[in-house]
Formats: sequence, C-alpha cells, structure tokens
Amino acid sequence: MKLFPVVMAGGSGTRFWPLSRKNRPKQFLPLDGDEPMLAATVNRLPPLARIQDTFVVCGPNHAAAARRILRKLPRENLIVEPCPRNTAPCIGLAALHVTRRDPKGVMIMLPADHHVARPDAMREALAAGAQLAFEGAVATIGIRPDRPETGYGYLKVGARLKALGRGKKAFHPSRVERFVEKPDVVTASRYLAEGGYLWNSGIFLFRADVILEEIRRAMPVLGEQLAVIEKSLGTPSYGRTLARVFPAAPSISIDYGVMEKSQRIAVVPAEFGWSDVGSFAALSEVRELDDLGNVLQGDAIVIDGHDNVVLGNGKRPIAVVGVDGLVVVDAGDAVLVVRKEKAQDVRKAVEELKRRGRGSLL
Amino acid sequence: MKLFPVVMAGGSGTRFWPLSRKNRPKQFLPLDGDEPMLAATVNRLPPLARIQDTFVVCGPNHAAAARRILRKLPRENLIVEPCPRNTAPCIGLAALHVTRRDPKGVMIMLPADHHVARPDAMREALAAGAQLAFEGAVATIGIRPDRPETGYGYLKVGARLKALGRGKKAFHPSRVERFVEKPDVVTASRYLAEGGYLWNSGIFLFRADVILEEIRRAMPVLGEQLAVIEKSLGTPSYGRTLARVFPAAPSISIDYGVMEKSQRIAVVPAEFGWSDVGSFAALSEVRELDDLGNVLQGDAIVIDGHDNVVLGNGKRPIAVVGVDGLVVVDAGDAVLVVRKEKAQDVRKAVEELKRRGRGSLL
Repeated sequence: MKLFPVVMAGGSGTRFWPLSRKNRPKQFLPLDGDEPMLAATVNRLPPLARIQDTFVVCGPNHAAAARRILRKLPRENLIVEPCPRNTAPCIGLAALHVTRRDPKGVMIMLPADHHVARPDAMREALAAGAQLAFEGAVATIGIRPDRPETGYGYLKVGARLKALGRGKKAFHPSRVERFVEKPDVVTASRYLAEGGYLWNSGIFLFRADVILEEIRRAMPVLGEQLAVIEKSLGTPSYGRTLARVFPAAPSISIDYGVMEKSQRIAVVPAEFGWSDVGSFAALSEVRELDDLGNVLQGDAIVIDGHDNVVLGNGKRPIAVVGVDGLVVVDAGDAVLVVRKEKAQDVRKAVEELKRRGRGSLL
Repeated sequence: MKLFPVVMAGGSGTRFWPLSRKNRPKQFLPLDGDEPMLAATVNRLPPLARIQDTFVVCGPNHAAAARRILRKLPRENLIVEPCPRNTAPCIGLAALHVTRRDPKGVMIMLPADHHVARPDAMREALAAGAQLAFEGAVATIGIRPDRPETGYGYLKVGARLKALGRGKKAFHPSRVERFVEKPDVVTASRYLAEGGYLWNSGIFLFRADVILEEIRRAMPVLGEQLAVIEKSLGTPSYGRTLARVFPAAPSISIDYGVMEKSQRIAVVPAEFGWSDVGSFAALSEVRELDDLGNVLQGDAIVIDGHDNVVLGNGKRPIAVVGVDGLVVVDAGDAVLVVRKEKAQDVRKAVEELKRRGRGSLL
C-alpha cells in the first residue's frame, strides 16, 4: 500500500480579512502557529507519507506562493487548477496524477487550512483510514464532538465495521448513515447528547481507482471530462487540455457529488485536537491564551478584558481596555474590530469595501 | 468695564491617548470640530472680547504650538508657566498680567478644552457674569444639568441675587451654597430631581483686583509669591523671577483654594451646549452622529453596530462589525479599543506602556 497525500489549497475566503487577501488566502497565513497553515499541513504528514508522494492542488495565482513555502515539494507534485471548481473536480484531477504513479495508491485528501493539535494522533487515524481505503472503502475521518458546535457538518454513524488495531489504540470504523449540514444549536446539542454523530472533518481517504470509479458512476459528465484530461497527462498538451476542459467541470463538492451517494463510505472516529479554524474567533481554540483567556500577538496589551483575540502587526501597539469577547486585528493597512460571535460577518465588511471601490484592500 | 479672557491651556492628560501625547495634549486636538479646542476657545469670544485682550496660559513645552495655532494672539499675551501648579497659581499669575493693563479689568477664566455648541448663548452668559464680576463678585457659570452626570462637579445654588437683563433673555444669578465633588449616580439623580444644582463649568469671572485680594486672604503664601513676581513684571528679570518663585507655589485648584472659602461667590445659571469632553465617550455628545448613533472619522466603516466612536487616521480603513458602544481610535502609530463606559481607563493603558518602557508613544 502506497500513500499519496493530496492537500487541497485552492480555497479563497474573506473570513480572515484584513490578514487574508485575494492573493494571500487563509492557508498562506500562519494563523495557528509559526508557519503558514498549508506548510504545517504538508509537514505534519511524515513519517506516515513522504513529501515526494505528496500533492498540493491550488489555483494559478497562488502557485508561486505555494512553491515558495513548500521548497521540498517536487515541482511536478503541485497541481494547478485553471480555476476553482469545488472539491469533486479537484479530487478527480488529483486522482489522475496519483494513478500515473500507482493506480491503487491510497489518496489522503486534506484541506490545507485546518489546525491539528496532535499530529501523531492524526497520523494514527490516517493510517487506520488508509487501511480501510486500501480495502476499497471511501473513508472519511469523523471527529468526536466535545461541544454543540454549529459551525461544522456532522456524520451520522451507521453499522459498525471491524476494528482496526487492538486495545486502547484500536479504531472503530462504521458505515455512514448520512451526512448532516451545519445544525442549529438545539439540534447540535441533541447530537452531542444522543451520541452517534461525528464532525465531518473534510479529510477523506480512498484508492485512486476507487474514487475515479465512484466519480464515473455518480458524476458521469465529470467522469468523461477527467478521461479527456487523463489522455493528455504527461504530454505537452496537458496544460492546454486542462485549461479547456476543467473550467467546464461541474462546481460541486465531493461530499454532495459523490460521498452522499456512495455505498462504500466508512468513517473512522478520531480525536486529534482538530479545528477548521473557521474564523478569527476560533483562534481562541488553537492559540496559546494568557491568564485571562486572551489571544495576544504582536504588540498587544489587554487591560481589564477577557476572551479577546488581539492580533497586532508588530509595528505599533494595540491597547484594548475594558472589553470582552472582541476580535481586534491590525494588518498594517487596515484595522478590523468585530465581536467574536459575529466573526463570520467579516465578509460584510469586505463586501462594503468592495462596494466602495476599495478592492485593492481585499 | 474691560474684559480680559484668560484661557487656561496648561493641562496635560492621558484620557485621549493615543491621539493626545505629552507634547500634544487634548487642547491641541480638533476633538469637537475642525480646529484645535484651544483655538476654538479663543475664537468663540469675539465680539464679546478682543483677541488683543485675550491671554493664554500654557507650559513651556506647548508655547510654540500655542503660538502656531493662535497666529493673531499678541506675543505678550501668551503667559508661560515654568511648571504646572494647578489653577490657583495660574489665575494669580494671569491676574498680575491683567492688572498691568487694567487693575479693575474683568477676567474671564476659561478652560482651553471644553466644547460649546452655542457660542452666542455662551457669550450672553459671560456678559451677564462679567456684569456681576464688575460689581465685585467672584462669578462662576453654572450649567443646568439635563442628565444625572457623574463626571462633573456640582454647585448647590443659594440665595437669589437680582436678575441681569429682562424677560426671556434675563439671567438669574444666585449665591453658591456649596461646591460638590463628582457625585455617584444615585446622588446625581437626586440633584437632578430636586433641582437647585448646577454643573460646575470651571468658567470663572472676577476683577483682577478682586481675585488678587481673595488670594491674599485665602492663600497668603501664594499672595506673597505673586507680590514678588509682580515687582519683576515688565522688567528683564521677570523670566528669572518667575522660574524661581512659581515652582514653589502651592499646587492647588482655585475652587479648593479660594472659591469654596469666598464670601463673594455668585453663579450664573446658563445653557449653551457645554461639555468638558472628558473622554472619547463624550465625542458622542459633541460630534455629528450617523443614523445608528456612531461617530465616524477618517476611513471608518461600521456594520451592524450602534453608538460607537470610530476615529480613523484617514490613511487606512477601520472596519467595525457587530459591536455597540465601543471606542476605536487609530492614531497611526498606535491603536486603542475601549468600551465607552470604560473610556476613563485609557490612562491604564498609558501606565502599562510606561511600565513597558514605551514612553516615546506617550
């Protein structure tokens, strides 16, 4: 069994403005530590998988930045999508590249912008998932919830499968009964109380041949488009073909397009300090806190305040006085202040700036 | 009767940091309009008094700035205190300068950092106060309270004096029964409900000879020090004498040192949209508001937020999202975020920066 991690770095978003910009999306920011999240994602895989076998998928305007922060990634392992088409086409394209190395290679699909507190525990879970995948499953990693989180999708656990490993270190995979969209807080609380629900981490494992077969069955149009691209792979016409065919692919997520229809879905429940770091508010989960629960970066001073996220740019002080539960970000050329509970609404500020013709700041 | 406004611009404070600095205190900032508060204070006096008869008192490190913003003020009308000694010595010194022009000249003592919404109404009140002062009273302007403000001192109104003027435009001065320190909110509410209390505006009117006599009686040491300085006035030794004698003067306010002991105190009740602009929070009273009650300056955007004070420096945007009752100030080299109710606590941030050896920012 050979493992091929595929890190999906094509995302763009506005929830981390003003730190994130069009040309520097979230995965290129060191939001949860010292290195950009994309680099951390790639670097936490060895010794489970080798960097030579790791692929990264991103858009054309981020390729140079990705190469810069991933010096050891072989040049041919960077897959550049001509345009964003959500995860189903992205995964299909990656599967073609993996197939050229090993048609039965096990792909580990990883979002580039998630936080993992315990990489060793993550690698153990991925190893278990890879075992299932090698046997033909479309495997996903489900995170055991520890709170009624409304920001994540959930998986309803189905029939038990045979355990992987033994004793305390064993993993207990199951079928997936269904995928559940982000619930409201009452529903999320019920999921937590009832048990049998896991957070959908967006991490998937499958053999290249298996996922291509699943795509052909569930998304025949995409299947045909991939077949066209596959013929050009390794030839001088690849770039041209990709640029012609890929933009026509349906923009659909792998969850919706394939997973939810698949009969081979299995989930490996795990815990490894996972967070999708969905907004500035989530930095309180993944960063070191001071005695009063504040996240401080740069030249930040909090007085009489709890539970704030204050990110300075290191060039001038930010003083926060008598405030709780606030996000304050100084990006040098723009300042953001938002209540933690409203951290998702940062996009509204971005829209307003766009409306005012201030696109250069976005 | 000749009027001599004396604008006291010696204050230094930290409640407007990071806009105010050691070398640019509050009265040099355009907090309530387009011009520095000191300039507005001087410029709202004509035609009641002439700029040639107006004095400004400030410290040596602010003299150049004061001259710069008060181009029309005669050079000899800027009185430079060698060091701050509170208002009693400041007023005594100013009285010496006024005496040289007219011993019975009526001084109008004005803080340099207050807001006045209706200068014409203020001038009418000052004219009434000057009338009382010319007749020998130590007059003060009392502002009719419209809310149970805890940030101001109060005057308890005593026996009625004869009205000044007639009909609707008449002023009804009284004796002052006592001066009251800043009350708690229960006491302030009682004052408002009972009536008979006025806000102490810190604006006083008296003849130069009268206040010097009052000082000699209530503060004999200061009286003697002033006598020494007076002898040197207009001679080459003035600067040297002032530098030697003034720092030895007792650092006491005119309220405490003289007013509260005087038998000649009278108060003129008035309303002219007065505010002492005691903190960033007060800008909501004196600045234009948007539809949601926000004060916006520079490149400020508020989304889903009420009752905020957001002061940009005009060079980069500040986006405030989902927040109410917050003060956000970008001074270019420092950023402040503080809840409006805690706006007085800005000094804590200043102290913390001092403790960290960041004095250059203060």
